[in-house]
Amino acid sequence: MNANLPVLDQENFSAHPPAWWQRGVVETFPASADQNLALALQTSDRPLRVKLGIDPTRPDLHLGHTVALRKLRQFQDAGHVAVLIIGDFTAQIGDPTGKSEARPRLTAAEVAFNAQTYLSQAAKILNFDHRLELKYNSAWLGKLNLEQVTSLLSSMTLGQMLAKEGFSDRYAKGVPVYLHEFLYPLMQGYDSVAVNADLELGGTDQKFNILVGRDLQLRQQSSGQFGMLLPLLIGLDGVQKMSKSLDNYVGISEEPLLMYSKLEKVPDHLINQYFELLTDLDLNHLPANPRDRQKLLALTLVSQFHSPDLAHQAQQDAAKIVLSGQTTDLGELPEFDLAQVQFPAPLFYLLKATGLCKSNSEAQSQISNGAVRLDGEKIPEQTFSQGADLQGKVLQVGKKKFLRLI
Amino acid sequence: MNANLPVLDQENFSAHPPAWWQRGVVETFPASADQNLALALQTSDRPLRVKLGIDPTRPDLHLGHTVALRKLRQFQDAGHVAVLIIGDFTAQIGDPTGKSEARPRLTAAEVAFNAQTYLSQAAKILNFDHRLELKYNSAWLGKLNLEQVTSLLSSMTLGQMLAKEGFSDRYAKGVPVYLHEFLYPLMQGYDSVAVNADLELGGTDQKFNILVGRDLQLRQQSSGQFGMLLPLLIGLDGVQKMSKSLDNYVGISEEPLLMYSKLEKVPDHLINQYFELLTDLDLNHLPANPRDRQKLLALTLVSQFHSPDLAHQAQQDAAKIVLSGQTTDLGELPEFDLAQVQFPAPLFYLLKATGLCKSNSEAQSQISNGAVRLDGEKIPEQTFSQGADLQGKVLQVGKKKFLRLI
Repeated sequence: MNANLPVLDQENFSAHPPAWWQRGVVETFPASADQNLALALQTSDRPLRVKLGIDPTRPDLHLGHTVALRKLRQFQDAGHVAVLIIGDFTAQIGDPTGKSEARPRLTAAEVAFNAQTYLSQAAKILNFDHRLELKYNSAWLGKLNLEQVTSLLSSMTLGQMLAKEGFSDRYAKGVPVYLHEFLYPLMQGYDSVAVNADLELGGTDQKFNILVGRDLQLRQQSSGQFGMLLPLLIGLDGVQKMSKSLDNYVGISEEPLLMYSKLEKVPDHLINQYFELLTDLDLNHLPANPRDRQKLLALTLVSQFHSPDLAHQAQQDAAKIVLSGQTTDLGELPEFDLAQVQFPAPLFYLLKATGLCKSNSEAQSQISNGAVRLDGEKIPEQTFSQGADLQGKVLQVGKKKFLRLI
Repeated sequence: MNANLPVLDQENFSAHPPAWWQRGVVETFPASADQNLALALQTSDRPLRVKLGIDPTRPDLHLGHTVALRKLRQFQDAGHVAVLIIGDFTAQIGDPTGKSEARPRLTAAEVAFNAQTYLSQAAKILNFDHRLELKYNSAWLGKLNLEQVTSLLSSMTLGQMLAKEGFSDRYAKGVPVYLHEFLYPLMQGYDSVAVNADLELGGTDQKFNILVGRDLQLRQQSSGQFGMLLPLLIGLDGVQKMSKSLDNYVGISEEPLLMYSKLEKVPDHLINQYFELLTDLDLNHLPANPRDRQKLLALTLVSQFHSPDLAHQAQQDAAKIVLSGQTTDLGELPEFDLAQVQFPAPLFYLLKATGLCKSNSEAQSQISNGAVRLDGEKIPEQTFSQGADLQGKVLQVGKKKFLRLI
């Protein structure tokens, strides 16, 4: 092998520090001596067109979605062109059999709404002002006729298609594989032809589809796209891929305190990958203490998606409501407007007014049981002379009920 | 089973003589007590729409093609509507891989020419004046978009498609099955939807495709087409399906003498089926003698495709050139215009002039060997005083070379 060629091999990273684009990447392909992404990036006389396809059926983005978006942003920052493809055609045809939950059939209006929702979230990560092309695949897929579809299908054999994860298993087990399912990888591949992609980003489950795109391009031209595979982010349960339906996710539009509280509990075995995939921090200079790493991760991500100020506020709030060494599952912290109460007011009255206790007698009983805390400190029955003394503090009853006084 | 229902079971034919439409039929389907073709023919309050799809890639029709055309004509004669579908769309897209000899890609002009050639031949069998609808499937297939194709493909599973003869064998043997091949049965099936067919005719190899058409119709409406399967006519070799490429065929546009000569050699084990499928003769009143049956078949078919006069002329000509009890393979009988020869002329000179012998000396040698015949009779060297004496006679050298003197 020519020693002057960039080395992509993971084992040689110590000798050749990874390039900016290699952080967190599982695989790029092809990766031969004369055809590899490093060489293409080095020798191309024009910006690369970097494709990412998005599915407008699930508009709420979580951190798992941001892995590829962040990579795309890195390419934008390096001067390349992000080509974001909204799979509106695919979403509108859905699964004609109605059997695939992953492919609900959406109306044009639903697709438009979901796409807008997706984009407004993606704007937190991508540069929407420069080097971004936004495409809807109905623009080309909607124009394909039967002759062109026949030609598209003729590019693959049944054997090749059954190599795709899932198909041959299902066929072998007698689970119906409907013929139209073979079209989806070809549609995604045709997107690459249509936008003239040089590189497609995707999760590790996208290798087959990305290769289909490359093959379709090579039927028409001398070069085909590179593929870059990124890990599927494991969720907070530490086991399964992050997913809304598994409730192991952190949504990127979640409130700072909820986001912080979830992230400071990221399992130890995942935390380095979270730093690698979700932040720009130097992985060689992370805190040694696991608890400090969790806090840094939480603080960093809340800063990214909200602001450093809100991140620090969230950190303080979270500290207040984590009691007796126990972590409490948090929804968004509810707020109570002190203007609703006439001061001076006794504590038991405040507990009743906020709804933390159902009656004055329950409130008095909780206070005498030592179950009531203010900013994490147990407090006895007392009378507050003015609301200003309580402003911003977290009032809590037991381990589960709390709210912020405002 | 209701005794009043028509009985389709072959074993009961003696009790219930076959209906006009049952002659030569291998199978009709469905064939349940409440859904069968006999009942449909009996109870329908309108003419049935009887579909036959034709492939405009092979314009020369042979007797094998006429089996279904004749059946279609019988339906026309009974008052039903023949819907003849020219597969022009399918022929124009061909096989995009270029690997299928059965699916060459034709230009629009080639398809138009072939279709015209086909139709001018089919006009010998079908009634083109009444109860015929001629359709080109590009009219509907050319308009299908990707969404509609997706829906079409979603109507079948891989398992169902692999039930089609050929696919699963090939897949099991590792012979590539290209994905677009799955489209052709669906296209043919969609033709049935488009023309609203009540019945589709086809060879026994068409059962799968006809059922696909029925299934597609049933997805949209309460009734689907019936299927009627006809035998694949065995060729003159007595073994394989009649086919131009196997040279075991009788073309329906062949000259009377050639057609007659081929047909009077139809193998004994096939001759009854030829009568059944290709003629209207009463099968219970055929000649007992096999040789007479062959002659009757040949005479009948030449009469059908040319005229009774030409058929009898062919029979006489054939008798002249069938010598010494041996049958000779015939091409079209070449003709020689006697006006090219100056009379009186010696026989050896005539043999040289016609090209039957290469030289005068070869001619003299053949004559003395007794290898020269006129109208089947050996003749010695002699001089003919005028051409009129030879007019219409067949001059022959050996067993293979002959021509008609005109």
